[in-house]
Amino acid sequence: MNITQHTDYALRLLMYLGACPERRVTIREVAERFEISRSHLMKVVTELVAKGFVDGVRGKGGGLMLARSPAAIGLGEVVRQMEPCLELLECFGTGSRCLLDSVCRLKGALGQALQAFLAELDRTTLADLLGHDGQLQRALGLDEPHPASGRPAIPIRTAAGRR
Amino acid sequence: MNITQHTDYALRLLMYLGACPERRVTIREVAERFEISRSHLMKVVTELVAKGFVDGVRGKGGGLMLARSPAAIGLGEVVRQMEPCLELLECFGTGSRCLLDSVCRLKGALGQALQAFLAELDRTTLADLLGHDGQLQRALGLDEPHPASGRPAIPIRTAAGRR
Repeated sequence: MNITQHTDYALRLLMYLGACPERRVTIREVAERFEISRSHLMKVVTELVAKGFVDGVRGKGGGLMLARSPAAIGLGEVVRQMEPCLELLECFGTGSRCLLDSVCRLKGALGQALQAFLAELDRTTLADLLGHDGQLQRALGLDEPHPASGRPAIPIRTAAGRR
Repeated sequence: MNITQHTDYALRLLMYLGACPERRVTIREVAERFEISRSHLMKVVTELVAKGFVDGVRGKGGGLMLARSPAAIGLGEVVRQMEPCLELLECFGTGSRCLLDSVCRLKGALGQALQAFLAELDRTTLADLLGHDGQLQRALGLDEPHPASGRPAIPIRTAAGRR
């Protein structure tokens, strides 16, 4: 049982943007900093923009920012919105072929466990992950001034184009 | 996020054995009833035997039975024991390459959510899944007498051989 890389990247990107509230950030910068796939991250950004977590602006001086305050972004909501499949077993979806489908109590038990998982995540917001001690900024190398305005931004057509 | 087919099959097999306490059951019978892979089910049985959930006897008249009463088999324990990987993100394991590893609060939040998931499953036992109304037996076609003792059992070398 694990969370997809898609949601993992979404959470990392949100943390990066939250740790860097004073300027817009490019996809390239985040991909390079985490050493992750830029094209995959672009797909994640598209979805985060479409779902109202991130604000994206194209062209020079553009980039990404959080669309809401970190305290208004709950982890449960991010996982619910970004995880492509929260069906713990095949029988959670439509078209189950299990012969127990109509009488099975397992689905109910697992469904309640999933709700407990998400409810626990609802107790934490992006603001809780950011902290106040600057540790996250230092780990991300964001404690030094960034020459963001001095270089052309990478257009984020994919993200902003579908808004 | 989903549970592996391995754990899915383990849970189904345990339910089948629990619904059929008066005789030993063969892997072939369960695989045919659920229309699932017999070779995959055999691997699952090997692990269920090794971990003390199932008792397997080889040869004629042999087969599988629960090694404990259904009320003593908690779903949380089954998932903890059978799920190959309960590491929600790459960083839960050793050798994480994420640069946030030492300062990240996300891992803690997800870890607590996983504990809530498992704790919720701990509240349900196999006995709860079996019920008392015979619905499960009927869905599995186990409400008719089974000619188990009249036909040779399928040897379960894989399961019993590694005990």
